[in-house]
Amino acid sequence: MSEPVLRAAARPQLRLRTPGGEHRAQVETILRDTAVFHDFEIDIAIEVFDAFLANPGQDYCALGAFTQDGSLVGYVCYGPTPCTTGTFDLYWIAVAPAAQRTGTGTRLLQEVERRLARSGARLVLIETSSLPRYEATRTFYARRGYAVTARVPDFYADGDDRLIFAKRINASDVRQTRQWKPGKTSFEEA
Amino acid sequence: MSEPVLRAAARPQLRLRTPGGEHRAQVETILRDTAVFHDFEIDIAIEVFDAFLANPGQDYCALGAFTQDGSLVGYVCYGPTPCTTGTFDLYWIAVAPAAQRTGTGTRLLQEVERRLARSGARLVLIETSSLPRYEATRTFYARRGYAVTARVPDFYADGDDRLIFAKRINASDVRQTRQWKPGKTSFEEA
Repeated sequence: MSEPVLRAAARPQLRLRTPGGEHRAQVETILRDTAVFHDFEIDIAIEVFDAFLANPGQDYCALGAFTQDGSLVGYVCYGPTPCTTGTFDLYWIAVAPAAQRTGTGTRLLQEVERRLARSGARLVLIETSSLPRYEATRTFYARRGYAVTARVPDFYADGDDRLIFAKRINASDVRQTRQWKPGKTSFEEA
Repeated sequence: MSEPVLRAAARPQLRLRTPGGEHRAQVETILRDTAVFHDFEIDIAIEVFDAFLANPGQDYCALGAFTQDGSLVGYVCYGPTPCTTGTFDLYWIAVAPAAQRTGTGTRLLQEVERRLARSGARLVLIETSSLPRYEATRTFYARRGYAVTARVPDFYADGDDRLIFAKRINASDVRQTRQWKPGKTSFEEA
């Protein structure tokens, strides 16, 4: 019966803020513990996290979900899509297994969308695989308003297609969302 | 009547080889002279060329088309698509206006495909815009066996879709091509 307790405890106490170099090891641990990512994907995720640390907000932005004691339990990495106007890629969103099913991923995603809407973004893209092991990932995005806008057959490997999820965002949508659910979110601005 | 003369002169004398740092300015000139690329795209292309120079063949490969006097008249940049097995992106192919319609682009593309096939590539992807100004580009790829495999609406900007062209390649296809047209190509290996 540990999970319901953990859910109740984790939901109200999360704080969202920008992670720093001191969280690099925790980021890597979360990526490994999800058991979703290949080693080479984790290597790339860490390279990207380092690029974010070197120039925060230039090519990459990051946002972390922290417990009251300061432990990182989830993080998201996103950034402007090169050669586009107002399009952003959400590169990774990962939540530690113990903090999954507590709304952590949803809060990270909503906060990213809120920040992007404020910065004039039009479109958020998320790419993932068509393989069965990514079904939970695809369902997560589909339930949060993302739809498959394109599919590249055999992209990752033969039989492993690239699915591109897209969601249009704009400032008024985000303001409405926040009016509908007052008090449900409390963020520390980075 | 200058163009037919130029065509006849340029076609047999091209040499394909890997460009170096001494060709950086010529690469930029070609990109600008095509009048197809935005300034920010040229900036990115030069950044990528610099990344190629720093670590040739790691994330990016480049191939140049040179006249007998050593002038660069075209170049192509390609590389392995991150997080995939055997998929490659062709990032840029650009030919100086005076050397266009002489088969330079075709030779660069065929040589890239030959090299990729030898290295075990499965799939080559090329992205371009749906806007009318890129119609010649799209026709170029379509005539060389690339088909639109996916389309991301409003990717570059509202009304400006991302088209992803794809071509399957394998070693046997390339060997056949070379058997069918013996002596038509002569390359300097880098």
